[in-house]
Amino acid sequence: MTDLPISIDIHEEGPREGFQIEPGPIPTAEKIRLIEALAETGLHHIQACSFVNPRVVPGWADAEATIAGFTPKPGVHYTALWFNGNGLERALAFRDKLHITGSISITASEAFTRKNLNRSHAENLEAMRKLTATHISHGVAVTRIGVQAAFGCNYQGDITPAQVISTLEDAFAIAQEYGQQIQRISLADTMGWAAPQRVERVVGEVRSRWPEQKIGLHLHDTRGLAVANAHAGLRMGVAQFDSTVGGLGGCPFAGQKGAAGNICTEELVLLCEEMGIHTGVDLDRLIEVGRMAEEIVGHVLPSELIHAGSLGAFRRRAA
Amino acid sequence: MTDLPISIDIHEEGPREGFQIEPGPIPTAEKIRLIEALAETGLHHIQACSFVNPRVVPGWADAEATIAGFTPKPGVHYTALWFNGNGLERALAFRDKLHITGSISITASEAFTRKNLNRSHAENLEAMRKLTATHISHGVAVTRIGVQAAFGCNYQGDITPAQVISTLEDAFAIAQEYGQQIQRISLADTMGWAAPQRVERVVGEVRSRWPEQKIGLHLHDTRGLAVANAHAGLRMGVAQFDSTVGGLGGCPFAGQKGAAGNICTEELVLLCEEMGIHTGVDLDRLIEVGRMAEEIVGHVLPSELIHAGSLGAFRRRAA
Repeated sequence: MTDLPISIDIHEEGPREGFQIEPGPIPTAEKIRLIEALAETGLHHIQACSFVNPRVVPGWADAEATIAGFTPKPGVHYTALWFNGNGLERALAFRDKLHITGSISITASEAFTRKNLNRSHAENLEAMRKLTATHISHGVAVTRIGVQAAFGCNYQGDITPAQVISTLEDAFAIAQEYGQQIQRISLADTMGWAAPQRVERVVGEVRSRWPEQKIGLHLHDTRGLAVANAHAGLRMGVAQFDSTVGGLGGCPFAGQKGAAGNICTEELVLLCEEMGIHTGVDLDRLIEVGRMAEEIVGHVLPSELIHAGSLGAFRRRAA
Repeated sequence: MTDLPISIDIHEEGPREGFQIEPGPIPTAEKIRLIEALAETGLHHIQACSFVNPRVVPGWADAEATIAGFTPKPGVHYTALWFNGNGLERALAFRDKLHITGSISITASEAFTRKNLNRSHAENLEAMRKLTATHISHGVAVTRIGVQAAFGCNYQGDITPAQVISTLEDAFAIAQEYGQQIQRISLADTMGWAAPQRVERVVGEVRSRWPEQKIGLHLHDTRGLAVANAHAGLRMGVAQFDSTVGGLGGCPFAGQKGAAGNICTEELVLLCEEMGIHTGVDLDRLIEVGRMAEEIVGHVLPSELIHAGSLGAFRRRAA
């Protein structure tokens, strides 16, 4: 009755999401320590930094120093985030270390686009056209569409599947206009509005409309439902998830102080492994890295699992 | 494809679970304040205290004063917990206020029975026979079987569905011996070993063996999977859940310091309401009570939702 995947791809975003929101300052060496430790857990995709304006996100003023400083592990894709040509150029200076592909990032909520980007949806589409052209002019393929607020919005309320589809159509039109082959649609629950049935509906309608696309989920645990939403996504066959070790992060722009971060990578791994879905991650090692993350940020992280310990350790003791 | 229930019954155990584990002391008046506030949220079942040995659980030395002190709300069932004839007699002194029925409480893990109760499984069955006779002699019907460690055990490791079935058969034999009609089987994930597929398997096998019984789930969020497990249970048609406001609680006997408490009532309510499953609970009111619980215990509770706020408030603002 379900489309459970055999394995999933996890995109670890703890360094990028976590360090952008921490009041910090977190020493660059500590950021590097976390990135290098994550690569030893079996994770294959690590988003290592954000090339953003340091006046807007002071936590990433040391993006260059962080990327220059870590020793990459073969087989691991290190990625970064940027929102404009300037950010892209900063990333391209590290072509040798970073896996660089372009995204079209749009928001299913006009109200959030205005609040977060100070643009109308139409203006945002225009900005995405410009960014796509910039990617192409730098020889970077645009392969992914990311939809923010795909499940609801603090400023606009519920978002319907039809709104998500229409937003995606706008993004696909840009990709087509510029001859780019999109390979993945990422649906983000930016402000924690998703619930299992909503995940089923949105993923189901997006998959029906674009059956050839891979679908990824970027879930936040704002209201505690992230693992239930991941469970719903897995049952729909979703095989790519963004997550953060320890549950680092939270959206600094969503108008909710104290809101929880992303779905915890280690809880996602536990969920999958206990369902027979392969992640490639050594959970005990990852839990150690979650504890390291907690030590680095200097406060308790939302992950329950890093505090309780894995089942594996208890299984071995009981055996 | 699913057996989603139309509505669920929530048994709120925040006062009992929460106050037994807090290093406290929590003033009796504060316990009463929480119990009375919970009754105003639409919850119909509130476990108000534990009649246990105050030397073992000092947090419930004021069980009598708490029960004597609160003003009951018509239509709400207030319950209590006890483990022996002495506890039952203390509860019976409040027959007018408490909804008193008996349970047979057994553990699917022999190792946990020894650790937690200092008894073998056979000795525990003997104790349950004695307790059942005591209930009957006081005119109290035994209507429920509770299985501890039904999904796994820190001391014994994985628990198979066959072990759960066999444990339940032992308990049903006691009920039959004493002519008691069991109406509900409660499966407890005492130490946080459940994952969605395990929930499906155990609930499925128990339901096949005793199709006439109602099944309830008592979930702990020890490793962060409680809402995913509740989601799996709902899909199997489970319509009774124990939970605690704010995620109060945690098992003091499971050998895990810092382990999270029960599934949060407000996150369970959010999960259900967003899936169209009726709970009868006013979520905004419940969130206020969760914040009150946090204020009473004097530390941050695991609930994400009480920190983020309900969707309802944002929906009204966006409308």
